[in-house]
Amino acid sequence: MKIDLLITNCAILPVPGSEPLIDPGFVAVDAARILRTGPMAECPAFDAGTVLDGQGQLAMPGLVNGHCHAPMTLFRGLADDLDLFTWLHGHIFPAEARQVTAEMVYWCAKLAAAEMLLSGTTTVADGYFLEDEVALACAETGLRCVAAQAVLDFPAPGAEDPEKNIEVAARFLERWQGRDPLVIPAVFAHSAYTCANATLRRAKELTRTFQAPFFIHAAETREEAGQIAEPRAATPIGHLQALGLLDRDTVCVHCVWADDRDLDCLAAHGAAVVTCPQSNAKLASGRAPLAAMLSRGLRLALGTDSAASNNSLDLFREMDFAAKLHKVNPCDPTAVPARSLLETATWRGAEALGLETGHGTLTPGAPADLILIDLRQPQLQPFHSPQLLVYGGAGGCVRTVIVNGKLVVRNRKLSTIDLGETCAQVRRLAGR
Amino acid sequence: MKIDLLITNCAILPVPGSEPLIDPGFVAVDAARILRTGPMAECPAFDAGTVLDGQGQLAMPGLVNGHCHAPMTLFRGLADDLDLFTWLHGHIFPAEARQVTAEMVYWCAKLAAAEMLLSGTTTVADGYFLEDEVALACAETGLRCVAAQAVLDFPAPGAEDPEKNIEVAARFLERWQGRDPLVIPAVFAHSAYTCANATLRRAKELTRTFQAPFFIHAAETREEAGQIAEPRAATPIGHLQALGLLDRDTVCVHCVWADDRDLDCLAAHGAAVVTCPQSNAKLASGRAPLAAMLSRGLRLALGTDSAASNNSLDLFREMDFAAKLHKVNPCDPTAVPARSLLETATWRGAEALGLETGHGTLTPGAPADLILIDLRQPQLQPFHSPQLLVYGGAGGCVRTVIVNGKLVVRNRKLSTIDLGETCAQVRRLAGR
Repeated sequence: MKIDLLITNCAILPVPGSEPLIDPGFVAVDAARILRTGPMAECPAFDAGTVLDGQGQLAMPGLVNGHCHAPMTLFRGLADDLDLFTWLHGHIFPAEARQVTAEMVYWCAKLAAAEMLLSGTTTVADGYFLEDEVALACAETGLRCVAAQAVLDFPAPGAEDPEKNIEVAARFLERWQGRDPLVIPAVFAHSAYTCANATLRRAKELTRTFQAPFFIHAAETREEAGQIAEPRAATPIGHLQALGLLDRDTVCVHCVWADDRDLDCLAAHGAAVVTCPQSNAKLASGRAPLAAMLSRGLRLALGTDSAASNNSLDLFREMDFAAKLHKVNPCDPTAVPARSLLETATWRGAEALGLETGHGTLTPGAPADLILIDLRQPQLQPFHSPQLLVYGGAGGCVRTVIVNGKLVVRNRKLSTIDLGETCAQVRRLAGR
Repeated sequence: MKIDLLITNCAILPVPGSEPLIDPGFVAVDAARILRTGPMAECPAFDAGTVLDGQGQLAMPGLVNGHCHAPMTLFRGLADDLDLFTWLHGHIFPAEARQVTAEMVYWCAKLAAAEMLLSGTTTVADGYFLEDEVALACAETGLRCVAAQAVLDFPAPGAEDPEKNIEVAARFLERWQGRDPLVIPAVFAHSAYTCANATLRRAKELTRTFQAPFFIHAAETREEAGQIAEPRAATPIGHLQALGLLDRDTVCVHCVWADDRDLDCLAAHGAAVVTCPQSNAKLASGRAPLAAMLSRGLRLALGTDSAASNNSLDLFREMDFAAKLHKVNPCDPTAVPARSLLETATWRGAEALGLETGHGTLTPGAPADLILIDLRQPQLQPFHSPQLLVYGGAGGCVRTVIVNGKLVVRNRKLSTIDLGETCAQVRRLAGR
């Protein structure tokens, strides 16, 4: 049987969170989909276009980053150890006003895409201005992208007249729907404190028309509830509900200051949440109620947020941080087990973003988005359990990355773009 | 002028925590010491035995890991997501009773040494049973080691008769003092809950005789105060003080449950502290009062603890976790700045361990323990400030490691040992 790609002799974690491993096993890929996985002893005599020897490696689904502002790699390390308000208004917004251009968005998103692929992420949900350039950069680099055009009520790059922000978003959706298998267009209403109620409603209406995902930052800081101009409820989540914005196509990012009633409300409407523990910690915004979200079965993804507030886009690091943070506070070593992070960073995260069933697993028919991890690294020796991927793994252990059936990273080298040129372009832009 | 080693064209961070960088610069090494650093424009015409082109790289002091039990790599990922008591008594102690032999200690310490060197650590303070094997393994791998023989009041590998534990430690100090430039022998009294007061006093007396460092786990868990058989004070730190154990050669590991009076007491005696935030978080032991320790100017090092409770020995990861954890709880984004972690993981940590002045810097006369970090990695682009080493750096960014003037890692390959053989030996031991 002719197939596109066969990986042999590797350990396989087909569905993160479920054990045991298949070891040694094979992964057969055809027409950009997982065809089959199984033990080597049962491997059919495939006629494969490409064969990779997976000896000493672990095949698992690529990671799903639920929240990023890819172009903000330009501002990585520009301002650290500040609170969200000072950081945003004193540093990031002024830098954006000076520096955000289509060229900047394109090159800096490309750097982010490279960093994510090289650390094992195969899908990202991104939101920024001039998001066409992010979509282009991700598609060229080979990273799958839910690309969300930002909407907010002040002049922004690409939408200088805020009156036209919904129109700009509509044109974006039109341009990208069905255009590239790697790009799913969406809308990112920045927040309830930067968008009037009417804007939020119109943005949500637009995504309903296009059946596109709707993202919004919500309940990130304790102060946010007081920053909403015309609040319809006591909490930001309550406000979104009152405006009719919560449904299964809405993704609320952060939800640090979501109380039990807010979580019940999100669960009742089937709205999804993205938690970004490192960004929330570094900006001292707070700690999201992750254990409570998991116990409610909320639709949940894990995100890095931007390189300006993290400052890494490595989801392995994010999993590790999340697992440990939620054990030490409150003190409970059984809280948020490593297994639940592996799930959240793969198939649960994909589900939360509204991606097709199977995405984030290596089950037959799933999109062929997978990574090979070098188990011979000293930090992964001995390998008693996949939980070690959380507590000992790192982006640097990823050797090979396949997205949509295509070999994008091989032996830690990107095959799609010239990384040196991308870095040089970003350094040039940063030097301005 | 003839010298051993010259690194050219690199950025240089001679004293972490102090800016600015020298860029581009040179580092001259001779007779296992830093001879000089400076801008390339001022580089003398050295006749160097080895010349390394440091283009695109950052030279900085190697990291100092203040606390490890190197051989416990064997138990990495064996038991996760448990509290300290269950983890220790239900899993680790039984596994140690079955598996700790001289052979196990040697190979598993070698794996740890390899992991630490490959992630930029050039000095470790270790404590375990049969510590001779740790010292041997580190020296062979090229890692500088403060090797502390464990003392505790129950039968242990190499000290089956607890009556003889002090004698065993004395022989260890005799064997290793002055023997190898990479090994500084010491004693590790396990804790006040596993050592009788008389044992603690005798162990400390022994180290006074030998002018050797004295380590002890102290105030790790909230329960510890109640587990001391004959307490002399209300807190573990108070207990150690009452027994006369606190002085400048005593290093207290953890101090999670140290109150203000305990911190004042440690400061007054000049005793040092090692904080291990990831291990304390993963075991849900708690969060040490790091900001209060820093504001008191306590002698302080950063440690990974063992691979069984972390599960990584990468100090870059530890710095990042520490900086973020102490910002989110309590919410203060200015708490524990990245800069203070860079200091603690280098020269402050070296000072806390009683190493010579200059250790952990690249100042003239300092031991030539240094690393080169690849700044061309996407995760370190753009490089606005050395703080990015904390928030974006990772062990995998380290390309070259020099310890005591010797090239130990070059282009991510260990030149001292056969890593494949070490991993195979550890896998064999883990499979038993």
